[in-house]
Amino acid sequence: QSVQIYGIADVSVGSFKESGGKRTEQVASGRMATSFLGFRATEDLGGGLQAIVTLEHFMRMDTGEAGRFAGDSFWSRNANVGIRGDFGFIRLGRMGTPLFVNTLSFNPFVDSFGFSPAIRTIYQGGIGKLSGDSGWNNAVGYGTPRFGGFNANLLVSAGEGAGEGPNIGGSLQYASGPLALGLAAQKVQTAFSRGDETAWQLGASYDFGVVKAFGQVGRIKEGETFVGAARAAGYDTRDRTLQAGVSVPVTATGKVLASYGEAKTTGARDSKRSFTSLAYDHNLSKRTDVYAVVMFDKLQGQDRAATTAVGIRHNF
Amino acid sequence: QSVQIYGIADVSVGSFKESGGKRTEQVASGRMATSFLGFRATEDLGGGLQAIVTLEHFMRMDTGEAGRFAGDSFWSRNANVGIRGDFGFIRLGRMGTPLFVNTLSFNPFVDSFGFSPAIRTIYQGGIGKLSGDSGWNNAVGYGTPRFGGFNANLLVSAGEGAGEGPNIGGSLQYASGPLALGLAAQKVQTAFSRGDETAWQLGASYDFGVVKAFGQVGRIKEGETFVGAARAAGYDTRDRTLQAGVSVPVTATGKVLASYGEAKTTGARDSKRSFTSLAYDHNLSKRTDVYAVVMFDKLQGQDRAATTAVGIRHNF
Amino acid sequence: QSVQIYGIADVSVGSFKESGGKRTEQVASGRMATSFLGFRATEDLGGGLQAIVTLEHFMRMDTGEAGRFAGDSFWSRNANVGIRGDFGFIRLGRMGTPLFVNTLSFNPFVDSFGFSPAIRTIYQGGIGKLSGDSGWNNAVGYGTPRFGGFNANLLVSAGEGAGEGPNIGGSLQYASGPLALGLAAQKVQTAFSRGDETAWQLGASYDFGVVKAFGQVGRIKEGETFVGAARAAGYDTRDRTLQAGVSVPVTATGKVLASYGEAKTTGARDSKRSFTSLAYDHNLSKRTDVYAVVMFDKLQGQDRAATTAVGIRHNF
Repeated sequence: QSVQIYGIADVSVGSFKESGGKRTEQVASGRMATSFLGFRATEDLGGGLQAIVTLEHFMRMDTGEAGRFAGDSFWSRNANVGIRGDFGFIRLGRMGTPLFVNTLSFNPFVDSFGFSPAIRTIYQGGIGKLSGDSGWNNAVGYGTPRFGGFNANLLVSAGEGAGEGPNIGGSLQYASGPLALGLAAQKVQTAFSRGDETAWQLGASYDFGVVKAFGQVGRIKEGETFVGAARAAGYDTRDRTLQAGVSVPVTATGKVLASYGEAKTTGARDSKRSFTSLAYDHNLSKRTDVYAVVMFDKLQGQDRAATTAVGIRHNF
Repeated sequence: QSVQIYGIADVSVGSFKESGGKRTEQVASGRMATSFLGFRATEDLGGGLQAIVTLEHFMRMDTGEAGRFAGDSFWSRNANVGIRGDFGFIRLGRMGTPLFVNTLSFNPFVDSFGFSPAIRTIYQGGIGKLSGDSGWNNAVGYGTPRFGGFNANLLVSAGEGAGEGPNIGGSLQYASGPLALGLAAQKVQTAFSRGDETAWQLGASYDFGVVKAFGQVGRIKEGETFVGAARAAGYDTRDRTLQAGVSVPVTATGKVLASYGEAKTTGARDSKRSFTSLAYDHNLSKRTDVYAVVMFDKLQGQDRAATTAVGIRHNF
Repeated sequence: QSVQIYGIADVSVGSFKESGGKRTEQVASGRMATSFLGFRATEDLGGGLQAIVTLEHFMRMDTGEAGRFAGDSFWSRNANVGIRGDFGFIRLGRMGTPLFVNTLSFNPFVDSFGFSPAIRTIYQGGIGKLSGDSGWNNAVGYGTPRFGGFNANLLVSAGEGAGEGPNIGGSLQYASGPLALGLAAQKVQTAFSRGDETAWQLGASYDFGVVKAFGQVGRIKEGETFVGAARAAGYDTRDRTLQAGVSVPVTATGKVLASYGEAKTTGARDSKRSFTSLAYDHNLSKRTDVYAVVMFDKLQGQDRAATTAVGIRHNF
């Protein structure tokens, strides 16, 4: 059989509250890592080439529903086919963006849509939120091989005359020993923004051994067309995002994670949102861990909200 | 590969009629056993512990549609992750309720939503129908190991401020030689009932060898808040359910199944519905069987309806 | 594990334009072969019998969405269970129709909903379009074994009192050495047509070695009930379809495909639509190919539209 099945099952139990929102006790799916089921088919084409099909389905394990939210597409994590070789790789279909990969790569909570201050401020926070999803439809992606520690990615998404796109994004990564650096940028055209939105982000991590440190700074800027009515409606904004965090291995199987992230909006509206997350993550095995998290969420003008949760995550 | 794929494909052809309804000739999916596709990932954590992810998808094989009905969630049979060990098991996510397991365990037609009088009266009959699904969202389930023939299950479902829940359910089972006993109870809070609904069910089976006998009695009681307008609207009801059946192995590969079940409603409305099912089930192999069923359905004040069907079921 | 996972991932990049429509640059899924993911479970029942479950899911790899279009059922390619043996096979559930199989069998672009003139005119063209899908719900299918080069298929779909059906379809095939012949016919009752629609199609192919030639002729005829208001509304039509094509192996791993197809409508409306497709298809391996296509689309009274695309297809 040439098809691999894999994924992540993440469910937590906790007391959740957004800044300005209502507290609820929940059994929640995918807060630490978005639960998904994947299928990957590969074929060796000879000459160092390989054909790869990736189909990845997000699901909500608390309710059994497909997708990350109502209306999400079934294969929203990845749905693409491509070829990998000495030249790097090229993929066609739906896939994650370079800016999203940069966001998850340089913070200790990785791609946690529940608890990562970086993800929350940029992809989920309202304030500072990027236009466009963490994955793009109708895309062609190219990634270089690694040259002396460097590699780069480029992603283009066709507009197809519909609301979103054409979009373009790219990134440049450097890794050498304990140091990793990443710079990503993107330009998104959406029906909502009625104009271009440009964003960039610089990330870095350094593994000191006793602690791994992470940092990110970024900007999101609404485009030139955002004047007049759009400005009056509060769309014409500039956002500044930053994140700093650490991952501290405290035992052979446990580590402490801490991260602070904020997004500050100026322009048509002034606002600020910040998240502070602290977690203990314990590995039961190579593929299964349990964790306890506390997260503080503060939206300007609203109360400081605390969320606490314990959960289990299994990589299969 | 650590992921198992399994399921049931059940399709029958027949002349179907509900009491008071219209007769239609149908190719129908999942009447004898609801068709599903499952994925199970397991990992040995050491120390007798095991991590388990279960994702189970109901589908309608007659139309190719996902779910048991329009609007059903994709992974409605099971979507959970948990740990199993000497302590029993704990699971988080969506999973079947103890009362549902008790209902299917002590009747010869098991979980047949088409032909089991027990399932039909309690989960599908209108009269006597439980509030809440056969599986609950946002749930935490715990099951004990077996002690001297006994084991118990507990399931709690968070309300999360939405319509349904918090719910709680539990069961106690005993099995020794030919005898099996089960007692299950649950309390459900739904947006529809605007109050608590409590239900319990006692089930028993005894395998005499030449015949295996099954019996169930139960009660469903709408809560205290059901007064005034709700009573006038006919929601304030008490239901009494019972079922008696046999499974008779007539050849090495064939058995006859017979079951009678009824639900009697009193309170704001008086009503009664009964089902009588008779089937011959023939095993073509360990995992494939074919069957012929006749079922009579009688709703108080309506005609006695007869359904006849032949079908094939494959466990994969 | 008794379950096989397989499918097709097909994504192309091109400039697409329908006759009378708008040109868009697209990354498109399933234009050369509709992308799908399949699960097949088989069990040997002894005595030469085999139980088979087939679940096949179409997906749009450009957007990650399930189905061929919004509202398509999840398992729309196949969802059936059956038995295969010396007697042939019988299947219950949802499955492809004999006329659809005949349509894809005798044209060089096979089941390409993007580029096959035969498929486009009959299943997607508007003009000449069959009532009923390429697969039928609530169906029972029987296929004979091969006798002296001949085999036949019969498919019956229950109406179930809803919009579509009962439908009936059948086909007869002959294959001997380089020659293959197929005749298929069907009668469909739909809510839309408010009457019977009958269709038939004759197809042939001959492999000369240096070139394989394909030809198809067919008729689609709206039923007797189509009079009065229906005629006035333009539903009462007769369609004549034809297709001629070649597949030319030009290298050990590459072949040129060419096909012309048209559907001509008479009756309540007079119209004609034709497609001309030319492709080069290059095998990177046994299961992966890349292709370049140009297709001309002409709807009577509209402009001649040219579509060009390059793509990759992987069979897994």
